[in-house]
Amino acid sequence: MKKFLNSVDTVLTESLDGFVAAHSDILVLGDEHKFVRRRELKLGKVALISGGGSGHEPLHGGLVGHGMLDAACPGQVFTSPTPDQMLAAAQSVDAGAGCLFIVKNYEGDVMNFDMAAEMSEGVLQVVTNDDVAVENSSYTTGRRGVAGTLVVEKIVGAAAEQGLALPDLKALGDRVNGATRSMGVALTSCTVPAAGRPTFEIGDSEMEFGVGIHGEPGRRRDALKSADAIAEEICTAILGDLGERAKGPALLFVNGFGGTPSMELYLMYNSARKIFERSGVEVIRSLVGSYVTSLDMAGCSITLTMLDDEMTALWDAPVHTAALRWGM
Amino acid sequence: MKKFLNSVDTVLTESLDGFVAAHSDILVLGDEHKFVRRRELKLGKVALISGGGSGHEPLHGGLVGHGMLDAACPGQVFTSPTPDQMLAAAQSVDAGAGCLFIVKNYEGDVMNFDMAAEMSEGVLQVVTNDDVAVENSSYTTGRRGVAGTLVVEKIVGAAAEQGLALPDLKALGDRVNGATRSMGVALTSCTVPAAGRPTFEIGDSEMEFGVGIHGEPGRRRDALKSADAIAEEICTAILGDLGERAKGPALLFVNGFGGTPSMELYLMYNSARKIFERSGVEVIRSLVGSYVTSLDMAGCSITLTMLDDEMTALWDAPVHTAALRWGM
Repeated sequence: MKKFLNSVDTVLTESLDGFVAAHSDILVLGDEHKFVRRRELKLGKVALISGGGSGHEPLHGGLVGHGMLDAACPGQVFTSPTPDQMLAAAQSVDAGAGCLFIVKNYEGDVMNFDMAAEMSEGVLQVVTNDDVAVENSSYTTGRRGVAGTLVVEKIVGAAAEQGLALPDLKALGDRVNGATRSMGVALTSCTVPAAGRPTFEIGDSEMEFGVGIHGEPGRRRDALKSADAIAEEICTAILGDLGERAKGPALLFVNGFGGTPSMELYLMYNSARKIFERSGVEVIRSLVGSYVTSLDMAGCSITLTMLDDEMTALWDAPVHTAALRWGM
Repeated sequence: MKKFLNSVDTVLTESLDGFVAAHSDILVLGDEHKFVRRRELKLGKVALISGGGSGHEPLHGGLVGHGMLDAACPGQVFTSPTPDQMLAAAQSVDAGAGCLFIVKNYEGDVMNFDMAAEMSEGVLQVVTNDDVAVENSSYTTGRRGVAGTLVVEKIVGAAAEQGLALPDLKALGDRVNGATRSMGVALTSCTVPAAGRPTFEIGDSEMEFGVGIHGEPGRRRDALKSADAIAEEICTAILGDLGERAKGPALLFVNGFGGTPSMELYLMYNSARKIFERSGVEVIRSLVGSYVTSLDMAGCSITLTMLDDEMTALWDAPVHTAALRWGM
């Protein structure tokens, strides 16, 4: 294992300490590293809280700040945060208008966020499940929540900032999730620090097609193909799943898994955009970068969100987080 | 070689096509992919032009836009751009107040930017050489220009936006470069697409200490050490080189080389910050991310820029590029 670390036991806390120190203008760390929250709260605003296993940075901590999340709860690497983390976060950021939990669809996350919701008052939840690769998976009943979660967090976060009420935010989050599809491909495995070796074996000329963000199996192992061929298959799966809805304005998000440089991500974006546009999708917003990662895995995912005017305006609204910032 | 590509001959142009398509609100691609320029020029503003071999993205194309570069010339991977690229870029963005070339200190870059400067009127140059690792190197007489170049581009770019004249921008660029030191470490090699195999061999428990951003040798090959020990040695080299100047306010920039995820970069930031602050440096600004990369190399560099009030205000000034954005 070749990583920058001092001890596998302190990777997470040391990284969080650095993260909050680097962004202390906008972020505060909760006691015992239970959560990261925004420094300035807004009275009467619904609090948005997300979280999940660590190793997907900048998701979710890097998306805490004005116009996006109010708090994020980092679990151990690829391990769900515990309900007391969500409870501590909710207590810290509840500004009197209730909390919305945004939860990626993994059994542990869903169970623990459910427990925290039951122990709180005024909590609703949005569960994301944008991954079209497989129906059930290692840690999931139903589809996995992957990079599309960022899109839900951005759009719902902007609406919360503008004062939308809790039930309306829940409905908006479900609507954005419903308009969003993703699929990924891995060229290498990730390595969990505590394991010290790659999560899965993969040959020098193989790829894992439809991989999950923890290195879970996808649709199949295949020979490594050209960027165009990979994009074609991913985009076709996304378009097929969207069906009639895959026409008109959309956000195209090409996401790196942590070990793939920006040059390759833009090349994949170029391939994917052409395929989508040939099929009647109009790419009016774009995001390219490593935002929902799988530690050091080389690979990427493609996410398409079909946009309406409201969603587009909320996507464009000002945001100031560690990883996503514009308009301020 | 495991990369997202269609053909090694078109990696660069396809990636540039995707890049400019994703950021068409602010960028325009020059004919024959000779340069990337900002969409909106400002009459009477000195034009800032940089460039160099590709493979270091988002440097420099991702730093083109309001408050930073006016144009960037991408060479082939790890190969200097040709003088006709700089000439075409200068012709396209010169707004009547002359051009400043910002050039990383590599022999090919210096020679080609020099040729372009000689063939133009009203051009001055800043050559960056922030890498303290080695005095001369594979492609360099003197010190290499590495991640500190981004700091020069940001601060000088803000001053140009505010209307500073060409000779003053040149002086400011030299001053920022003189206040900046960097050093890097590689855990893996990069792989140049056209070569198809790693640039250098490195063992499973080795690191290349003081590596260059093309995989050039650094100070030595060593056994992989803890993050704290690596940071200690890099920070000590930077502090020693700065000498008496290493007191007071500074910008700490921890830069990933392309294959290292954000979790590890923030952990390194945490280590480096403690070491610098113990020694009297006050970290008042921070940047953590993969901005000056070496294709898919796993590794990072640490850059320290000693700040004065003017430099701090210019760092904080609004910027809108693909990779760096705030205040707008």
